[in-house]
Amino acid sequence: MKYFDALLVNQMAATDLSVEISNNLLTANNVWMMLSTALVFIMHLGFAGVEAGFGQAKNTVNILFKNTITPIIGIMSYAVIGFFLMYPGFDVPGWFGFDGAGWSMFWFSPGDADVSFGYADGGYTYWTDFLFQAMFAATAATIVSGAIAERVKLGAYLIFTLFFVGIVYPLIGSWKWGGGALDDMGFYDFAGSTLVHSVGGWGALAGVILVGPRIGKYVNGKTVEKPGSSVPLAVIGVFLLWLGWFGFNGGSVLSADPGLVSFVLVTTSLAACAGGLGGFLAAYFAFKRLDLGMVLNGILAGLVSITAGADVINPAAAILVGFIGGILVVISAILLDKLKLDDVVGAVSVHLTCGVWGTLAVGIFSTNPDHSFFTQLIGVAICGATAFVSAFVIFFVLKSTVGIRVSEEHERTGLDSHEHGIRGYTIVYDE
Amino acid sequence: MKYFDALLVNQMAATDLSVEISNNLLTANNVWMMLSTALVFIMHLGFAGVEAGFGQAKNTVNILFKNTITPIIGIMSYAVIGFFLMYPGFDVPGWFGFDGAGWSMFWFSPGDADVSFGYADGGYTYWTDFLFQAMFAATAATIVSGAIAERVKLGAYLIFTLFFVGIVYPLIGSWKWGGGALDDMGFYDFAGSTLVHSVGGWGALAGVILVGPRIGKYVNGKTVEKPGSSVPLAVIGVFLLWLGWFGFNGGSVLSADPGLVSFVLVTTSLAACAGGLGGFLAAYFAFKRLDLGMVLNGILAGLVSITAGADVINPAAAILVGFIGGILVVISAILLDKLKLDDVVGAVSVHLTCGVWGTLAVGIFSTNPDHSFFTQLIGVAICGATAFVSAFVIFFVLKSTVGIRVSEEHERTGLDSHEHGIRGYTIVYDE
Amino acid sequence: MKYFDALLVNQMAATDLSVEISNNLLTANNVWMMLSTALVFIMHLGFAGVEAGFGQAKNTVNILFKNTITPIIGIMSYAVIGFFLMYPGFDVPGWFGFDGAGWSMFWFSPGDADVSFGYADGGYTYWTDFLFQAMFAATAATIVSGAIAERVKLGAYLIFTLFFVGIVYPLIGSWKWGGGALDDMGFYDFAGSTLVHSVGGWGALAGVILVGPRIGKYVNGKTVEKPGSSVPLAVIGVFLLWLGWFGFNGGSVLSADPGLVSFVLVTTSLAACAGGLGGFLAAYFAFKRLDLGMVLNGILAGLVSITAGADVINPAAAILVGFIGGILVVISAILLDKLKLDDVVGAVSVHLTCGVWGTLAVGIFSTNPDHSFFTQLIGVAICGATAFVSAFVIFFVLKSTVGIRVSEEHERTGLDSHEHGIRGYTIVYDE
Repeated sequence: MKYFDALLVNQMAATDLSVEISNNLLTANNVWMMLSTALVFIMHLGFAGVEAGFGQAKNTVNILFKNTITPIIGIMSYAVIGFFLMYPGFDVPGWFGFDGAGWSMFWFSPGDADVSFGYADGGYTYWTDFLFQAMFAATAATIVSGAIAERVKLGAYLIFTLFFVGIVYPLIGSWKWGGGALDDMGFYDFAGSTLVHSVGGWGALAGVILVGPRIGKYVNGKTVEKPGSSVPLAVIGVFLLWLGWFGFNGGSVLSADPGLVSFVLVTTSLAACAGGLGGFLAAYFAFKRLDLGMVLNGILAGLVSITAGADVINPAAAILVGFIGGILVVISAILLDKLKLDDVVGAVSVHLTCGVWGTLAVGIFSTNPDHSFFTQLIGVAICGATAFVSAFVIFFVLKSTVGIRVSEEHERTGLDSHEHGIRGYTIVYDE
Repeated sequence: MKYFDALLVNQMAATDLSVEISNNLLTANNVWMMLSTALVFIMHLGFAGVEAGFGQAKNTVNILFKNTITPIIGIMSYAVIGFFLMYPGFDVPGWFGFDGAGWSMFWFSPGDADVSFGYADGGYTYWTDFLFQAMFAATAATIVSGAIAERVKLGAYLIFTLFFVGIVYPLIGSWKWGGGALDDMGFYDFAGSTLVHSVGGWGALAGVILVGPRIGKYVNGKTVEKPGSSVPLAVIGVFLLWLGWFGFNGGSVLSADPGLVSFVLVTTSLAACAGGLGGFLAAYFAFKRLDLGMVLNGILAGLVSITAGADVINPAAAILVGFIGGILVVISAILLDKLKLDDVVGAVSVHLTCGVWGTLAVGIFSTNPDHSFFTQLIGVAICGATAFVSAFVIFFVLKSTVGIRVSEEHERTGLDSHEHGIRGYTIVYDE
Repeated sequence: MKYFDALLVNQMAATDLSVEISNNLLTANNVWMMLSTALVFIMHLGFAGVEAGFGQAKNTVNILFKNTITPIIGIMSYAVIGFFLMYPGFDVPGWFGFDGAGWSMFWFSPGDADVSFGYADGGYTYWTDFLFQAMFAATAATIVSGAIAERVKLGAYLIFTLFFVGIVYPLIGSWKWGGGALDDMGFYDFAGSTLVHSVGGWGALAGVILVGPRIGKYVNGKTVEKPGSSVPLAVIGVFLLWLGWFGFNGGSVLSADPGLVSFVLVTTSLAACAGGLGGFLAAYFAFKRLDLGMVLNGILAGLVSITAGADVINPAAAILVGFIGGILVVISAILLDKLKLDDVVGAVSVHLTCGVWGTLAVGIFSTNPDHSFFTQLIGVAICGATAFVSAFVIFFVLKSTVGIRVSEEHERTGLDSHEHGIRGYTIVYDE
């Protein structure tokens, strides 16, 4: 009998140990996901750097204002509606739903850190899940911001952001990441080449079309360069974005799975390098100069391109995917200028062109035989059509009502002095 | 007999496993705490960015000099004395003590990575504990630095920092976090709205009063804006501070407890957003412009405000606490200018006003019924009186001896050329 | 029989639990190593900041171009050859080898995230190992970049980088970290004072000698200061480097061992502080000014100095090692100028002088009695001779063929307008 008792104790102990072990894994996974969240957060500073660096000095404050407010609006609107739209029980099967119960829990939870109510599958907490996704959401709007900078009305942009991050982005996201129709169909988008980047890119394209080019950008069939205020600032931005992608792609594993996450970091980094190289070479052939801007956009192009398949594309193919992305970003930029579509930072080329390319590349290079080029194409088309039409409608309504473009005088003299009352840089030494 | 042996083996194995499991949890917790330490460290770059960005170009090098030396002095004086003052066995029960044994271990430890001697409670190591707390300590001085920039004597500031970080901050900290009298009383300050931010803010106020306003700041009853050298730099600073707060508040859980830490990150982020929104709206009503400076300070205000109760205030209340913080920071800044208290970066408004507000907010919104508004008020008053009087005395003694203000000529032509021999920016293209 | 069955179940369960426990430790270790990798990555932005900040405005884009391309070339060449040279089975015992099997696995792995093939010893994955080491590798070239900026031909620098990172660095590294001859001899270099920093520093010295000083740097026996474009940028750079060192030294433990890693972070931080203080004081005595540049280089000096022995030097000695490093960096800079060796950012003084000092310091201060000053000296000499001769030969061949120096006209008017077609800063407000 004594033996048996001891056995029971042992069995109980094993059960207890098992709970502790499982809790430890949750802890480690959650640490990774929280730090990935922090890394995605800092991408917002990255975007701010790229846009303020490439934008003209007379509009620096305006650009920074947009980029500071964007994550604020993004996170808050995601908390109020987006998160619950994106991970719903579907009311319209596969296409639309709202997680009302989650909404109540979020806002009326005891809040006394009794947060055990909803650990997400895969080992991280409900709160981590929310914050990680919220940081993602805000990026979609930021992409638009860069394209239409230097002439868009700030108020109109803010209203656009509210609808785009609060509704359009999470709705499209729900179709795949929320387990909706595209997911059922077998569409694959690991970390959002389509769901985040091309969605943002389509929004940017709609904006660029409706808001029109900056005054003096296209003169007598020629494209006039508008020198950015600070190249170092743009470089800071791109490096921070690359850093942030460690969390953007690495965190999209949704756990700290050692093999898978580190594999993703390697494909991501190799694609970034290859993209930078591709942009460098393409720009050298096209413009006969060592074009730092295109190296920087090439890096971003490589990152966007690998994002859809970072976990299913092997290192050699990752380099190819990134390299092609780097070339595409240069071609796309040239093409847009030919079409007189004025994109201040090249956001359409980076996020839309390469977002589409990266998603299709999964259909070509994925080591998972279930992935098909055709399915990827359908997913790209459905998300693209939805994002573009939605963004076009929002901007069109705003254009027809409050207006989306500042006055010619404001644009010429700069947005900063008119709307913000200060200058971006005041570097004077003689009083 | 064989059965019994097997049982014993099992029991031993279970004990071994239990040790390993416990060690794994320590490892994960410690990873989180070390990375939180790194995040708090980078806040010092954040402060440098805010101060150099908002300060005038002629004083940029001086400001950066202060902000670079501050963590150096802060960490070293904390190692020499502060750490052992803050976590003492109390000699004067609840109010004063010094951990002499810890001091000997720290400085005369074998040092050959035989660091098993003192794992802190809650699962992280003694060394992690020291470094995390040291990074915190240095922030208190940095807050002062921003307020009195552009006219304070560098030497005087450095001596002030030595005393303030080495003695005043850890002494006050010991009353709550060291388990002293305020802790016994039931005062609650999760991550330091009072112990770090308002302590620094009181120091800043004392400095601002004694050092006086910059020349030409208040002329004929009007406040003259002194344009900062670089708004992008200030934006970089604020984003890095927000990033750092992931570690400041998230690390203050003192473990990687998945539910609690992620809950804290959510309340922290929501308060930051709401603070930015509050600052935006309040400034819009007050000044009729889109005031980026107040959005930035509003974000910091939201962060400071939620810091005392990030673990006990639910998401909806966190938004309210942050939003009110964002409004208060604007009102406070206006008020200080009316009183001719010249605070270059708004440090008093951000860290003192909102530090007090955030601590009191725990008494209003905490989900823990043990927290009381009255106790919070007493804690605020005791810490505030001590910090203000100490800082005032230090500055007063310095003023009466070595002086705390540079000459009028130095101030007019800028501190950089006189004390440092270089300029902050040299952007010329024609030789 | 029933008892016995239960026992067996228990034993199996214990085995399963043991696997899970071991997997959890791997997960936590790997999280730390991946984040250390991210931290070392951001050091490349740190280097970019320091170099662009201390470089003249007319060469900003050129400097940033180099610093952006360097990690790209570094990571890619490390993937193609360096990694497999550095961790080989030795063909020539202790001195040379190439891991062909690893190369095949890396490039022709299934890549479908089936990455279980090669967990490194000590608990992190093969992919993490590669990426962490690749980030290290690229730093060696970056060090060179800073020294010879503002007059080196970009193409020549890129070719140099390819050979230096692809072959020289990993070859030398293999002698110690790959388990080669220096490792057998008992040479100790924890995180690379010699293997990374002095190797880069010797490369920089070779470059500085062969490329010659900038025009107008040494005139009539006097050293002419060339003011850097942006001190804030340099400060951002140094803080990011300090931050990155959390991963550089902390990650070099190659696990998340709580005691050892946190001990390393403490010695690293204390040495950084002491180095900044040493640079401050030495520059004050030498130049009678508050020299921010020397505080910044002093911090880096402290960090480089502690890197060889961060895990075996106790806190008090760490302060001494860092402080001496901070003094040495000032003396070294003065000496180099006397020798008319023009090093734009002080890279030789920081990385070579202090790299050597730090490695020797292990022989003096290490708590491990196996470490000897003499062995350290031999290691320093062997690595130094190899690095310097290799770099000298590469630069010499380049000088004799494609040339390594831009034309006098380009140098005078700045590299940006000639090679890149844009300016680093365009801050104008009147059109």
